Amino acid sequence: MSGRYLSQMAGLASTSQPPDHAVIFTSTTTGDTDGYAEAATRMNELAAEMPGFLGVDSARGDEGVGITVSYWESEDAIAAWKGDAEHTVVRETGRTRWYEEYELRVARVERASGFTRSPADPR
Amino acid sequence: MSGRYLSQMAGLASTSQPPDHAVIFTSTTTGDTDGYAEAATRMNELAAEMPGFLGVDSARGDEGVGITVSYWESEDAIAAWKGDAEHTVVRETGRTRWYEEYELRVARVERASGFTRSPADPR
Repeated sequence: MSGRYLSQMAGLASTSQPPDHAVIFTSTTTGDTDGYAEAATRMNELAAEMPGFLGVDSARGDEGVGITVSYWESEDAIAAWKGDAEHTVVRETGRTRWYEEYELRVARVERASGFTRSPADPR
Repeated sequence: MSGRYLSQMAGLASTSQPPDHAVIFTSTTTGDTDGYAEAATRMNELAAEMPGFLGVDSARGDEGVGITVSYWESEDAIAAWKGDAEHTVVRETGRTRWYEEYELRVARVERASGFTRSPADPR
């Protein structure tokens, strides 16, 4: 991680200033999700060890739509993550068993802004 | 909607071919979420009526992280959505009451791929 910030640990992914790259993965799952949660956690851990990884946020809502957005320093970093052997095996399991549908989009982050509540803010 | 596809209705947002633009909004909420779910639903409905809207996916997981990704034909369409009066009021309420933290990123989608299970696929 080398000082990077992983959302699973606390709060949201806080990436560097743009430009960086986002991989937006949206999915719906089948009725067969045996092993899925463990694999998803493992994939986020593995991604965090890859060179050029900046952060990741994941959520799956009650209506079955899951969204994972991971952030990367470069296209090369994304290509290396795609080529990782363990990741490749898990993707294949995803297509065979877990996913009803998914969309994968690679995007270049052009601007970013944020808000963090301070203790003095009204609630 | 004019033929566009809104994820809240069925499945995932299926946008046009890139390049299009994504607004990635990640958030965590405070303990005060009165009115939040209704406002989120209303905002997705309102966005879908805006010119240049392509689709939206939303999920909020058990651990409190919410992700909404909306897709737009152009930066101008995003600017018009940001300037919408009702949207502006709701954003202010978000900062005052609902959000502990958020990050907003505007990105240009450079490539996309997808998978849809066919009835013949093994599961």
